[in-house]
Amino acid sequence: MSQFESIALIGPGRVAHQLGAALHDQGVTIEGVYGRNAEETKKLADKLDSRVIVNLSDVIQADLILLTVSDDAVAEVSHQLNRNNKGLVVHTSGAVPLSAIEGPNRRAVFYPLQSFSFDKHIIWENVPFCLEAENDEDLNGLGGLAELLSQRIHVLSSDQRKSLHLAAVFANNFANLMFELSEDLLAKAEIDRSILHPLILETANTVLMQSANLSQTGPAARGDKKTIEMHRELLGEDNSYREIYDRLTNEIYNRSHEQKL
Amino acid sequence: MSQFESIALIGPGRVAHQLGAALHDQGVTIEGVYGRNAEETKKLADKLDSRVIVNLSDVIQADLILLTVSDDAVAEVSHQLNRNNKGLVVHTSGAVPLSAIEGPNRRAVFYPLQSFSFDKHIIWENVPFCLEAENDEDLNGLGGLAELLSQRIHVLSSDQRKSLHLAAVFANNFANLMFELSEDLLAKAEIDRSILHPLILETANTVLMQSANLSQTGPAARGDKKTIEMHRELLGEDNSYREIYDRLTNEIYNRSHEQKL
Repeated sequence: MSQFESIALIGPGRVAHQLGAALHDQGVTIEGVYGRNAEETKKLADKLDSRVIVNLSDVIQADLILLTVSDDAVAEVSHQLNRNNKGLVVHTSGAVPLSAIEGPNRRAVFYPLQSFSFDKHIIWENVPFCLEAENDEDLNGLGGLAELLSQRIHVLSSDQRKSLHLAAVFANNFANLMFELSEDLLAKAEIDRSILHPLILETANTVLMQSANLSQTGPAARGDKKTIEMHRELLGEDNSYREIYDRLTNEIYNRSHEQKL
Repeated sequence: MSQFESIALIGPGRVAHQLGAALHDQGVTIEGVYGRNAEETKKLADKLDSRVIVNLSDVIQADLILLTVSDDAVAEVSHQLNRNNKGLVVHTSGAVPLSAIEGPNRRAVFYPLQSFSFDKHIIWENVPFCLEAENDEDLNGLGGLAELLSQRIHVLSSDQRKSLHLAAVFANNFANLMFELSEDLLAKAEIDRSILHPLILETANTVLMQSANLSQTGPAARGDKKTIEMHRELLGEDNSYREIYDRLTNEIYNRSHEQKL
């Protein structure tokens, strides 16, 4: 069981909805919910058997004040909190340092590494939680809370979390862009996009088994210039597909070549 | 059951090993194996209860002559085949047109869309087979053969297959490069690469549920310039990571912006 007996959620967005509901399901009390949009805030408070916090400057009766606001709002919102709150103030962002939370609050970070891309069912046991705190007691407390949902718990510094956030842009946003470009090419050739789904799953599963640089295949890794020229011709000139193809093909070619030296 | 009673494999590489073994397991007779490397050829022939074909110009007693050679070798090898072979000559390449197989052979294509990246167990039922033939009889014959291994059967023209091959470079090679770059960034920050594995699986699974352009998230899709600048600073100047970050961030930004118009 978590050492936090009650939690306040500040910012009733997607993370608050998902994380609040998951914690509530685990028997954690959601003491109150604060948000600028009265209707959304009320809706979330009702869902979580909680109450609406009207002013941030009120004393909040919660052990943990969880900021599920946008990155930019962390500093401002923590500044507006009542200084007499006894709770630990925690933000949930990958890109924001611990120090963005204003003192004299006790501060920490509770970052679920997950793309909350649409209204989907989150499988919390697969979600890594990245924690940072100013002392072991708070860190252990947050560890206990995360353990209610997942065994994947990592203690990272603000600098490490920043690098992780950047790495996640490559692994999620940029990989997703590659899937999007491939879907465009299939659509143009009148092929159903589902034909690539087994290969996409295979690509992801392979990187789980061994480092991605060991499993690179294809014309660029082989240095198969004939196939590369055929692809470039097919893409045509002066378009994003061709530019991206050239840039990434060169990158794979150079990396594969370096490894062989 | 397949209408092909026996198969000859020309080129004892990775595809021949994997596909040959899978078909042999299904009770298909592998009539003979040909390859330039005598030792490898003998090894594969033994594995498949088959014999070694010594000369391509011999008459090959097989209903299906399967060319599992490199793309460049398809034309040359099909040219060297004895003209009195009765079998259907089939190549297994995504990037090579049907017409690369020299006449007067009966010609077709049997392309398993899969990255044969290392010595792994292929789950054949997940592998799409892309077929092309000059007449319905040959197409049906190849369909029956593919069905021994998978229900994912697609009939594609040479032009479509070329586009599919290109799309697969984006979905597999380029996505894998994104995973590789993310692993580098994690290593630099002394974070174990496994932390991103749930997100990588999630990214792949999400694109199976809906088109990739609908599930894009992150700073570029949001137009979150502050986070983008933080990432660029972290990457430093004049390096591949930064160049690729900038190019792909612009692409996502432009696409997300266009959609909103």
